[in-house]
Amino acid sequence: MTQYRPISFTAAVLAGAALLAPPALAEEGMWTFDAFPAQQVKQTYGWAPDQAWLGKVQTAAVRLTGGCSASFVSAEGLILTNHHCVASCLFDNSKAGADYLNDGYVADRRDMELKCPGQQAEVVTSIGDVTGAIKAAMGSLAGEALTKARDAKIAEIEKSGCPDTDKTRCQVVTLFGGGQYKLYKYRKYSDVRLAWAPEDRAATFGGDPDNFNFPRYSLDASFLRAYENGRPVGTPAHLQWNPRAPREGEMTFVVGNPGSTSRLYTTSQLAFERELRLPITVTTYSELRGRLLRAMEESKDHEREGLDLLNGLENSLKVYIGRQKALNDPAFTATLVAKEDELKEKSAGNAAIGDPWSSVDKAVGAYRSLYLPARFTNPMSDLYGYAETLVYAAQERSKPNGERLPGYTDSALPLTKKRLLDEKPLYPWLDELTLEWSLSKAREYLGADDPDTKLLLGQESPEQLAKRLVEGSKLADPAYRQLLWDGGLAAIEASDDPMIRFALRLAPRQRELKKAVDEAYGGPLAVAGGKIADARFAAYGDTLYPDATFTLRISYGQVKGWMERGNAVPVATTMGGTFDRATGNPPFDVAPAFAANKAAIDPAVTYDFVTTNDIIGGNSGSPVIDKAGTVIGAAFDGNIHSLGGNYGYDGTLNRTVVVSTAAVQEALETIYPAPALVKELAGK
Amino acid sequence: MTQYRPISFTAAVLAGAALLAPPALAEEGMWTFDAFPAQQVKQTYGWAPDQAWLGKVQTAAVRLTGGCSASFVSAEGLILTNHHCVASCLFDNSKAGADYLNDGYVADRRDMELKCPGQQAEVVTSIGDVTGAIKAAMGSLAGEALTKARDAKIAEIEKSGCPDTDKTRCQVVTLFGGGQYKLYKYRKYSDVRLAWAPEDRAATFGGDPDNFNFPRYSLDASFLRAYENGRPVGTPAHLQWNPRAPREGEMTFVVGNPGSTSRLYTTSQLAFERELRLPITVTTYSELRGRLLRAMEESKDHEREGLDLLNGLENSLKVYIGRQKALNDPAFTATLVAKEDELKEKSAGNAAIGDPWSSVDKAVGAYRSLYLPARFTNPMSDLYGYAETLVYAAQERSKPNGERLPGYTDSALPLTKKRLLDEKPLYPWLDELTLEWSLSKAREYLGADDPDTKLLLGQESPEQLAKRLVEGSKLADPAYRQLLWDGGLAAIEASDDPMIRFALRLAPRQRELKKAVDEAYGGPLAVAGGKIADARFAAYGDTLYPDATFTLRISYGQVKGWMERGNAVPVATTMGGTFDRATGNPPFDVAPAFAANKAAIDPAVTYDFVTTNDIIGGNSGSPVIDKAGTVIGAAFDGNIHSLGGNYGYDGTLNRTVVVSTAAVQEALETIYPAPALVKELAGK
Repeated sequence: MTQYRPISFTAAVLAGAALLAPPALAEEGMWTFDAFPAQQVKQTYGWAPDQAWLGKVQTAAVRLTGGCSASFVSAEGLILTNHHCVASCLFDNSKAGADYLNDGYVADRRDMELKCPGQQAEVVTSIGDVTGAIKAAMGSLAGEALTKARDAKIAEIEKSGCPDTDKTRCQVVTLFGGGQYKLYKYRKYSDVRLAWAPEDRAATFGGDPDNFNFPRYSLDASFLRAYENGRPVGTPAHLQWNPRAPREGEMTFVVGNPGSTSRLYTTSQLAFERELRLPITVTTYSELRGRLLRAMEESKDHEREGLDLLNGLENSLKVYIGRQKALNDPAFTATLVAKEDELKEKSAGNAAIGDPWSSVDKAVGAYRSLYLPARFTNPMSDLYGYAETLVYAAQERSKPNGERLPGYTDSALPLTKKRLLDEKPLYPWLDELTLEWSLSKAREYLGADDPDTKLLLGQESPEQLAKRLVEGSKLADPAYRQLLWDGGLAAIEASDDPMIRFALRLAPRQRELKKAVDEAYGGPLAVAGGKIADARFAAYGDTLYPDATFTLRISYGQVKGWMERGNAVPVATTMGGTFDRATGNPPFDVAPAFAANKAAIDPAVTYDFVTTNDIIGGNSGSPVIDKAGTVIGAAFDGNIHSLGGNYGYDGTLNRTVVVSTAAVQEALETIYPAPALVKELAGK
Repeated sequence: MTQYRPISFTAAVLAGAALLAPPALAEEGMWTFDAFPAQQVKQTYGWAPDQAWLGKVQTAAVRLTGGCSASFVSAEGLILTNHHCVASCLFDNSKAGADYLNDGYVADRRDMELKCPGQQAEVVTSIGDVTGAIKAAMGSLAGEALTKARDAKIAEIEKSGCPDTDKTRCQVVTLFGGGQYKLYKYRKYSDVRLAWAPEDRAATFGGDPDNFNFPRYSLDASFLRAYENGRPVGTPAHLQWNPRAPREGEMTFVVGNPGSTSRLYTTSQLAFERELRLPITVTTYSELRGRLLRAMEESKDHEREGLDLLNGLENSLKVYIGRQKALNDPAFTATLVAKEDELKEKSAGNAAIGDPWSSVDKAVGAYRSLYLPARFTNPMSDLYGYAETLVYAAQERSKPNGERLPGYTDSALPLTKKRLLDEKPLYPWLDELTLEWSLSKAREYLGADDPDTKLLLGQESPEQLAKRLVEGSKLADPAYRQLLWDGGLAAIEASDDPMIRFALRLAPRQRELKKAVDEAYGGPLAVAGGKIADARFAAYGDTLYPDATFTLRISYGQVKGWMERGNAVPVATTMGGTFDRATGNPPFDVAPAFAANKAAIDPAVTYDFVTTNDIIGGNSGSPVIDKAGTVIGAAFDGNIHSLGGNYGYDGTLNRTVVVSTAAVQEALETIYPAPALVKELAGK
């Protein structure tokens, strides 16, 4: 699954950490829409999209704030995405006796479509260059003063760019690790509803063992619909649904929002990943996985209630294990070092550039000693997350826009508030499980005698504290959250909710750490990143793509298999293949509706297929578009080699895995019948 | 805790993998008794033990086959060791309502002493050099032919060396990765009983967070007794019990059986550890830890029944995480590379040595592709372990001694059989948990479509298979195990026990893999290891110590603290300090008997202390001996820096952690009163 699930406690400190690498190989690249390498593509393929083609596609491309990509595929706001991108929505709408995640959901009428908590659909309407204004604001500042000035300017630009916060959203994005700053304006739709989703097993056939593998037999597709004022929105500029099989070798374009890559990292940043961040992440997440797996065996309720977290966790873990493997492969990392050496050589003697790599080394060195406290003073729990948002929002809202933390500026607050206040179920046993785990890992990595451990735990054990906070908190109730939101700082400070008290206790130290990280790491990196970007443009020209930033990108490629240890991997699977691969036992058991309709399903229909497109987590749900601009699939995964793609793309091995529109059509007609959608997709 | 817990599925393939490094720094070294560097010690300290001193100590030093060290401390077979070395014995003797692991155990009379299943005490009686005979047997053979010839010769030497298998045991040990082969003869005592142990919390105060840390407040001590023919054995050559506080700066000697170190590994062997073995071990063990932690929260029974496995698992995990950290520290690994480079330089042009490092590189390269199947075709479960032993024993016993696998030769069979047949409790839920985990990890790392995965699982899921095998097996019953042992191959092949069928299914593939590993890795390494050892002796003379091999060693050092990030760590703690550190909450809750006797306990008594001795897992329980040859403590741990000690010793940071005899005496008199033992220890 290639959904984008940033680690909340690290995303902040890593923002702006992406630097620069040499020019793209054929088919490598997650290109911005304002810098598509049309000439290069035309040279290779004899054809390239023109501006009209790109503009049309951009208008139909949807970003889902839950961490996925999607596209409009009808004139009435119908959105194609992956099943795993709506799994949380199905989960949040489920309850004992109505398990939509397990059973799937087909809305027979529009008024039966299910609201998705926290979800918002966004369409890019313009991209503007604000590099000059941001760089002017930073001037010759350094450290935290620089990050403050930069963030203040960003808050100002975002606010003035999108005065209508009901329908628009502005975001300034840092590209090339500080080489460029761009203002993205979005048309936003904050009421997103679920129209159709298959059974979980249809999408997750093969489960974690088959995730990031191919051949694959997965119906990882679903349909949402954007609403406004209680009615479906009109989307005349949608993509055309084309339920046909792909042709081997044909060109494909993946249009979506890759979340984050680290291809421009310097060797010291990669060393930090390999030596510190990845081992800690993989180790601690593995323990959480074990706790959760066992807890889910305890009862049918636990099994249902833990599934969404488990799926996300196992997906993340597989990603991180794949990255760790890539960075522990000396042959692979040698190619990264060689790229950096080449750029250094080409930049030697350029006084305007100097030696930004040494600045990065120094910043990373300083960050190493801040990493553990910065990571572990942010406990993992939904209730704690609510408390933290409430505490920070109350404290930040009283400040001028330009002085607030990034998530709490005027441009960011609407989505922050929506995520806080949307109603969704919360299972106390599950929240206690994650909180207990994260507190015990904090004590393990910081040490029992560390002041931050003592700040977190006081005299309590992780088990006791987690139990007391979760059992005592009223924050699962959206009305109580609303009350505290409306009451502002006075209400927060007067609250005796133990989770609010806990978040209040941690906030000063979290702010102190953020300041220290900005001073020693974020600030220096913003300057050095800009310099390395300059070096790169000077050395390789301006046909470059930046690291992924969960903003709209386009990747070009073709329908093509690959060689796996001497064996050719076929380019596609068929729906009938599912029945051959099934063992009858989870996760290789056929979904009930598949089994029930086996005779009716056309076994020859193309199911999943692979392309050479360059994607990463966040691209989940991206439309896969042919030269004619019609949709022939939804990207839902990469193959196992694509996990190293975080650091570098290898066209001989990296593949995008796509669910075919032909398979979705077959499912709409035969397995999970939705005649109204079939008609709508046909434009009738 | 520094008990030696080899990973069964990797110990076999790593045997003989230890190569060579430069001469020891002051206080570095786990020296064999036949090559103690007396001159070097005398130069540094002005005093060194003479042969009489060493001989006396050797006669009193005990190896516990459970993975620990110990010593005779009375004339009637009384043995001092750690609490964590008898935890399994306490656990195996416990049942609902009699939780000796939690509550401790004091045998008021000798006939109340508790038999320890699977445990055997061994004392070295002679060490002989058999290098010539083994090397002659290997001749110019290579690959698996070499390992077969070597193992046949070892089996022959061991059998002829110890005809009395009731009272003696012979073991040929490979030192310097193949530079030397030594025959160790032991007097063995296969009836070992527990006389005294404190409460678990007294030994594990601070739990996993404090494990491998200091300051420390742990009563990690216990007493066993060796029996023969139902009576305590006479041990006139015991060490003298000396319940006094240590003096800062005084010399200390640790005598015990360090299990395994990798200080002589080549850089390619270290790379294999860093890139493959450690990440997989830490990741998979972390998941098991999570499963077990959650399962133990499910009921009081689970909490009790899971504790022994959890303690061992968390200890191993901390060790592996510490090693991973050491090998991910470029400054540390640079020192290892520099050592290898120096040896290569000193050996350049020596035709008799050639380039054994390249042979190791090649062997490690070949091993990389065998590692996953070799590791994951050995499921983890006590019942499976019984089945595997029964299947292999039946198959091997019908062969001539020289053709059998190492654990099944005439010299090895008695302990193998004892471990198989000794009665001990087995908890099906726990065995199912570990089996399910190990099968699911096999599928994860090998892939769902791998032939070895299919061999393991067939059409079943890991969950189903684990349940079917554990629920259907009768191997928990020692009488059934005895029946199958006595019935030999015919009984095994006729058995319908599902676990026996499973072990029979796996055995041919396991044998095939062992053969492949011997051919590509074990054989080449035995030759290259010998060459590198030759290079080392030529470069540095013969005052060298070999990597640890769970055989008797002596380490010299002194009572001394260290500097931790600018702060001096004190050399010792007092018993009163426990009460200051206690939070009242696990694992920082005071043991009930400590709380009850708080007023009577002398708070000034030295509790735990640190020394510069160089130790590693397996040294747990080692007597800490002063110049006079009296026991002043039992080593039970290293500090956190000592975890990197697997690869190299740093005298400024690495420390041994010892429980003082003064504290044990206080406990025997005041907290867990044992007046008979007090008398016996005083020699009255």
